[in-house]
Amino acid sequence: MKAFMDENFLLTTKTAKALFEKGAKNTPIFDWHCHLSPKEIYENKTPSGIVELWLGGDHYKWRAMRSMGIDEKYITGNASDLEKFTAYAKTLSYAVGNPLYHWTHLELQRYFNIYTPLNEKTAKEIFDECNRRISSGGFTPRELIDSSNVKCVCTTDDAADSLEYHELLKKENLPFKVLPAFRPDKALNIEASTFIPWISAMQKTCQMKIDSFASVKEAMKKRVEFFNEMGCRASDHAFNYVPYAPASGEELERIFKKGISCEKLTTEEADKYRTALMQYLCELYHSFDWGMEIHIGAMRNNNSKMFASLGADTGFDSIGDSETALSLSRFLDSVNKKGVLPKTVLFNLNPKDNYVLGSMLGNFQSSEAQGKIQYGSAWWFNDNYDGMREQMKALMNLGVIGKFVGMVTDSRSFLSYPRHEYFRRILCELLGDLVEEGKYPADIDFLSKLVEDISFNNAWKYFGME
Amino acid sequence: MKAFMDENFLLTTKTAKALFEKGAKNTPIFDWHCHLSPKEIYENKTPSGIVELWLGGDHYKWRAMRSMGIDEKYITGNASDLEKFTAYAKTLSYAVGNPLYHWTHLELQRYFNIYTPLNEKTAKEIFDECNRRISSGGFTPRELIDSSNVKCVCTTDDAADSLEYHELLKKENLPFKVLPAFRPDKALNIEASTFIPWISAMQKTCQMKIDSFASVKEAMKKRVEFFNEMGCRASDHAFNYVPYAPASGEELERIFKKGISCEKLTTEEADKYRTALMQYLCELYHSFDWGMEIHIGAMRNNNSKMFASLGADTGFDSIGDSETALSLSRFLDSVNKKGVLPKTVLFNLNPKDNYVLGSMLGNFQSSEAQGKIQYGSAWWFNDNYDGMREQMKALMNLGVIGKFVGMVTDSRSFLSYPRHEYFRRILCELLGDLVEEGKYPADIDFLSKLVEDISFNNAWKYFGME
Amino acid sequence: MKAFMDENFLLTTKTAKALFEKGAKNTPIFDWHCHLSPKEIYENKTPSGIVELWLGGDHYKWRAMRSMGIDEKYITGNASDLEKFTAYAKTLSYAVGNPLYHWTHLELQRYFNIYTPLNEKTAKEIFDECNRRISSGGFTPRELIDSSNVKCVCTTDDAADSLEYHELLKKENLPFKVLPAFRPDKALNIEASTFIPWISAMQKTCQMKIDSFASVKEAMKKRVEFFNEMGCRASDHAFNYVPYAPASGEELERIFKKGISCEKLTTEEADKYRTALMQYLCELYHSFDWGMEIHIGAMRNNNSKMFASLGADTGFDSIGDSETALSLSRFLDSVNKKGVLPKTVLFNLNPKDNYVLGSMLGNFQSSEAQGKIQYGSAWWFNDNYDGMREQMKALMNLGVIGKFVGMVTDSRSFLSYPRHEYFRRILCELLGDLVEEGKYPADIDFLSKLVEDISFNNAWKYFGME
Repeated sequence: MKAFMDENFLLTTKTAKALFEKGAKNTPIFDWHCHLSPKEIYENKTPSGIVELWLGGDHYKWRAMRSMGIDEKYITGNASDLEKFTAYAKTLSYAVGNPLYHWTHLELQRYFNIYTPLNEKTAKEIFDECNRRISSGGFTPRELIDSSNVKCVCTTDDAADSLEYHELLKKENLPFKVLPAFRPDKALNIEASTFIPWISAMQKTCQMKIDSFASVKEAMKKRVEFFNEMGCRASDHAFNYVPYAPASGEELERIFKKGISCEKLTTEEADKYRTALMQYLCELYHSFDWGMEIHIGAMRNNNSKMFASLGADTGFDSIGDSETALSLSRFLDSVNKKGVLPKTVLFNLNPKDNYVLGSMLGNFQSSEAQGKIQYGSAWWFNDNYDGMREQMKALMNLGVIGKFVGMVTDSRSFLSYPRHEYFRRILCELLGDLVEEGKYPADIDFLSKLVEDISFNNAWKYFGME
Repeated sequence: MKAFMDENFLLTTKTAKALFEKGAKNTPIFDWHCHLSPKEIYENKTPSGIVELWLGGDHYKWRAMRSMGIDEKYITGNASDLEKFTAYAKTLSYAVGNPLYHWTHLELQRYFNIYTPLNEKTAKEIFDECNRRISSGGFTPRELIDSSNVKCVCTTDDAADSLEYHELLKKENLPFKVLPAFRPDKALNIEASTFIPWISAMQKTCQMKIDSFASVKEAMKKRVEFFNEMGCRASDHAFNYVPYAPASGEELERIFKKGISCEKLTTEEADKYRTALMQYLCELYHSFDWGMEIHIGAMRNNNSKMFASLGADTGFDSIGDSETALSLSRFLDSVNKKGVLPKTVLFNLNPKDNYVLGSMLGNFQSSEAQGKIQYGSAWWFNDNYDGMREQMKALMNLGVIGKFVGMVTDSRSFLSYPRHEYFRRILCELLGDLVEEGKYPADIDFLSKLVEDISFNNAWKYFGME
Repeated sequence: MKAFMDENFLLTTKTAKALFEKGAKNTPIFDWHCHLSPKEIYENKTPSGIVELWLGGDHYKWRAMRSMGIDEKYITGNASDLEKFTAYAKTLSYAVGNPLYHWTHLELQRYFNIYTPLNEKTAKEIFDECNRRISSGGFTPRELIDSSNVKCVCTTDDAADSLEYHELLKKENLPFKVLPAFRPDKALNIEASTFIPWISAMQKTCQMKIDSFASVKEAMKKRVEFFNEMGCRASDHAFNYVPYAPASGEELERIFKKGISCEKLTTEEADKYRTALMQYLCELYHSFDWGMEIHIGAMRNNNSKMFASLGADTGFDSIGDSETALSLSRFLDSVNKKGVLPKTVLFNLNPKDNYVLGSMLGNFQSSEAQGKIQYGSAWWFNDNYDGMREQMKALMNLGVIGKFVGMVTDSRSFLSYPRHEYFRRILCELLGDLVEEGKYPADIDFLSKLVEDISFNNAWKYFGME
């Protein structure tokens, strides 16, 4: 029996251990997609305690607690910190096999030097020890990023965002980079209630009137240029499904007019607008050699009652199951044939699409980049042991894993870097198994370099950081 | 090499053995969803022999035999019992890896004390021994239920059913409970040929005229109340996909009129009717604190030729692949926001939906119950080693397995209780693996209690049996 | 640690080794679906070298190289053979876990007696050794087929094909059979640009005017009769999804008229035509007791730019995700109820459909054949270790694997027969695991016969070769 989560956690073979030791353990982190707040990094406050860090905004933990039947008071409500922590500790014991179990204990080990399993009985002792350590220092955002061996983080920023905190951070002499990433979802969701306020914000940011499809494009160009100046290397998009609906210029102007007049748009109209704007954005991204991330398949805000009381991103999202292959293919082809398909990372939330996306890559690869079209690592509901294995196995079976740009935390928490370690251990285990089962030669030098590439070098090169 | 199906069957680790021994082996069974006939339990006849028990109505076995190319004569036809038994024995040898292989041998071991593998050569000997034992007693429905350590079974009963056998059974002093479960599929399938006959039956049962949507609701209320008086704790629904199509009261009356006039309804109309009736049923179920089971994704009666000769449930159903996420989410939200979402167990037949349903739960959990929204155990075509593992892994990855309400036989056979044992062995193997791989602490006391909870306690509590 | 790809490759248990030795190793090959050129078999030329054999037409290898970012010059362009070979060797090292890795090394071992792993460093040496061996003989198509222990290959031939090379091959005294298979995709794709040219070709081949739906049927009948005379035992069809749209005779004539007049057809019209023609073809196939292969789910020619320069089948296809269950079921039922459903092999490209197809079989089995409806082996993007295991596990869980007709290369290469060996090793590993885990009795005689059946006998019998 292996010991519980010791230094050989998940490293089930000698080869896995050697690969982790040589290729992963000391390799830095490039977290090219996360949801950290540049403001918090700038302000760099010491957190009030472990409950702020763990339960202040983590909808993964909130969902688990709700599944236990725990009252909202102990989740997002006004219970005491210790009560909340104990409720989470109890939940965790029952969440056998959940990634939270491993994330939580990796964080306890790496940041707090605590190796005691967390449960209802140990909750008080661990709560106190965590808070003691937090108050004795080393837990500000910048300290956590730096001590986690992170070389660069890319935040997620609305197209209309001023990037003021990014500007301020540029002036600090930080031991790591903090770059913006361009997330224009609100520009694309023309039928959403967020559209008109976004147009207003954008008019202000761009100092121009936005009253036509042409002017939306002009404004987006300004922002992409500004983001690029600020060091942005990536855009990010969220879609239920990637739309493809060609339309004429007049149609697009007509649709835009309806959109800003709050007239109801059909799905087809909204998709036409989205298609045309995405095509234009691809041109811009391609011209700056950005990588475009596309996240497909989230179904958000399913619980309207809880949305009304807690808002978005509070644990009421789940996995959609729309058809995605054909329109995604046609969209990518439409920009590829104009020569403006940017480097693209495709992420799927529904694991049924693993082989659809994994095989889509191959349609649009080219010598513009190594692994120009990437299959993004297992994301959100798939960001667990099985999900990461399945994503990597799909990529192995269908493509060339040696050029994979690897893991991102996709997280709002400054304590989430051990997810990179978790990923790397799983990668080393997978490769180790292949070697020890006689499926790949025992070339440890080559494979540990490959582990290092997937852990850091590939992404660093892909996003043009060198 | 492990011995063939001995006492350590599937218990591949020491931990798995310990968990099975402490948490599962002697834990009773609560079979909260099955298709046993209350009439047969009441009449309590000794079966004529092993062929009646095994091949009298088991479409799993029939399908396997048809896959071998065996003539219908030896399946549902008039061949002799020994011929049928031998044909099944031969089929079984070729069905390597099929759950029938394990179910069959578990039944031979547990009910007949036979440890010889069944094949064409051993068929005669095993046939004789089974029949000898059956004729020497212990094989009536009640004896089989009792000797299987079953505390309660919930049958599946049409809304119009008089429950007369349930009433008779209540008067018997049985060592186990037999409760009805409410299955109003015929009330919902307004466009099916079964609708008009069902309305007639329902009018008779409820002693009232049903000539409007309002009167359907009134009738359903009467039945839910009566089922509840009879001890019912659960309803059950079968859908290709869960519909969500809101409609006005007038529309619903108009649709109902078309339905009872046998006018052709569009899918949208039928879905509007179904949505509204389901919303009303949710109110009723919630008021009685029932659990609502929803089985999604069966595609039934695919072979019209065989349907004409053998009818429904004879082995000609398979797995559908409709989109299910969005409308299911909207439906659940529509009742949740009115505060009348009952406890709900979601089952999917297409394994592509494992992560869709597994993540749907989290949208609607609340403190009304521990694990208020449940992910139902692997069902029908997934009720096998791989399917059960995958369902549990999805639940582990996405939720809190410790609150899982566990296994049901979903069976028409009085010999099918070893499926609970099969499930428990797989559960213990999975948990044992996590412990021995260092992924969960070796807390055998806690985990064996968790096994017991999943095997019995959680469901007992969830369905309000205590 | 197991040695890299030695004689026990994938045979992880004693039982697996015994089964492979007794049931698979010397069992001949019946490659009942491939894309070999009968012309090339007839002409029987010695290849110019390893690059012609490996990189002359293999879109699997081309895709992998493009994923590395390698320029098209080294893939399909005019780089030297050594440059291309080296580029492929380099790609391969990074393609850890890709089936190409194993196919390539199995081919090096079996045909070239080379056991050195191929990578950038060993490329030159291996390139030279391969070419030395090729030039010293044994590498003509016929020699490769024969030395691979192949008893029969079925090519893939357009309905309008004259089969002239098949006629010529019949007169040669070959130690193996080369049979045509009937692939009428162009007849069915009425809305494609290939339709009119195909009608012309067909008119010429059949020596008749084709100007009505009735005359298409008449022409098809002639071709099926001729193919049958030439020894054809199978047809093959490719569909995104299997259509089912019934239509009247007049409608069909009207749709056909639109089709040959190049008028735009709706999807529904094209599906009506396809449905009716497929139903007629089923009648023909059934009358000759052919097996009908249906390949579902490819999404082809996604990259219009590369299609313009390289044409079809050059590595720009991927996996579609259309719904497939309902229309497939209705189509099969429509011919089954007329008594003309031929033996049918269903293949799916999207692994999400494994359980849909695997359970569809059971709806239409009958005593006309053992395993009349078959679940085709893992195909194309699934033709890898994981995909083959998953297909076989689905078949095990849902049907009777002992009657499985097994593997096909589906290949354009004369070196691809080790894919049968790869499949057989995986089969033996799977069965060996079941035995050694106590899930099936250790009846090596029975199981090695079953391996032999799946490897050869079942297909030989199914396609009426004996």
